[in-house]
Amino acid sequence: MNEKLTEKKLTSELLFDGTVLHVYKDDVSLPDGSTAVRELIKHVGAVCIIPVMDDGRVVLERQYRYPISRVVIEIPAGKLDYPEEDRLEAAKRELHEETGLTADKWTDIGLYYPAPAYSDEKITMYLAQGLHKGAQDLDEDEFLEVFTMPLSELVDKILAGEISDGKTQIAALKAAALFGISSK
Amino acid sequence: MNEKLTEKKLTSELLFDGTVLHVYKDDVSLPDGSTAVRELIKHVGAVCIIPVMDDGRVVLERQYRYPISRVVIEIPAGKLDYPEEDRLEAAKRELHEETGLTADKWTDIGLYYPAPAYSDEKITMYLAQGLHKGAQDLDEDEFLEVFTMPLSELVDKILAGEISDGKTQIAALKAAALFGISSK
Repeated sequence: MNEKLTEKKLTSELLFDGTVLHVYKDDVSLPDGSTAVRELIKHVGAVCIIPVMDDGRVVLERQYRYPISRVVIEIPAGKLDYPEEDRLEAAKRELHEETGLTADKWTDIGLYYPAPAYSDEKITMYLAQGLHKGAQDLDEDEFLEVFTMPLSELVDKILAGEISDGKTQIAALKAAALFGISSK
Repeated sequence: MNEKLTEKKLTSELLFDGTVLHVYKDDVSLPDGSTAVRELIKHVGAVCIIPVMDDGRVVLERQYRYPISRVVIEIPAGKLDYPEEDRLEAAKRELHEETGLTADKWTDIGLYYPAPAYSDEKITMYLAQGLHKGAQDLDEDEFLEVFTMPLSELVDKILAGEISDGKTQIAALKAAALFGISSK
């Protein structure tokens, strides 16, 4: 660890212990010895899945996202049930619950931190191929529509600024780059 | 708006009104008429900048991110000063403060929501070209190291899973795709 950059926890206060969000306010010491306040969220972690059919179509969802008051086009995703949960198992569960799909082939295409300035959430991304249809099994407070779009078209829409969800942008651009799918 | 998916606010409670994070717990009505609780953050919004030098190198930062207890390689970025702030002006300010750079050419390369399930944060991405050196002007609680890496190498590292920051992955993959920079 780079000591010239590291911040050290002095005190930590749990301000809100919710179902999804756990909000803390910590005092930290900075590299120059001064102190600062850091507000942060602890999050259980999440997975997302880009399911690509044999013909190159991606299985997508339209889902209402309350914090931004709009319907968002997204790849399937979900929170872990608990922090130590096997992330691949969580990805299989979320894909099946949200779309009814199972997959023969799973590829880990990397992780990312969506908001490392204020959240410890880590999202692991999977490519799912060899898809088989089944029945959706949504959580009771979950409403979404499933549809498909060619990966090349999804990439074009991302480059044109027509897809606003971060995980969908990253996973589609990575899947397209890793598997040589050209957008033009 | 798709009425089959929309959730409506019933009540809203401000649980923590911090400097960066404003945490709410809302009761909402779901499309089927039942109710659910949504925990969410309101965030002022942010910008990020991928500064690409004439020789194809990207200006990057190493910055300690306290919520994940590690030094992260990131493109320059920062919060708006207030919600209505002009995002391009904020990008110019943040690039200059963090790296000392000014840029002749600014291109909006799209926006994304990093965590639409629980945060309204919107991040607008800019490509900055025609760069000129100046002096860093960091906030007093901000410590970071500036370095450079060819965009092609950054994209390779992203595809290899060696870059963990979400905004850096999206902006680099978009810049590479939009400007025809091959990673192989």
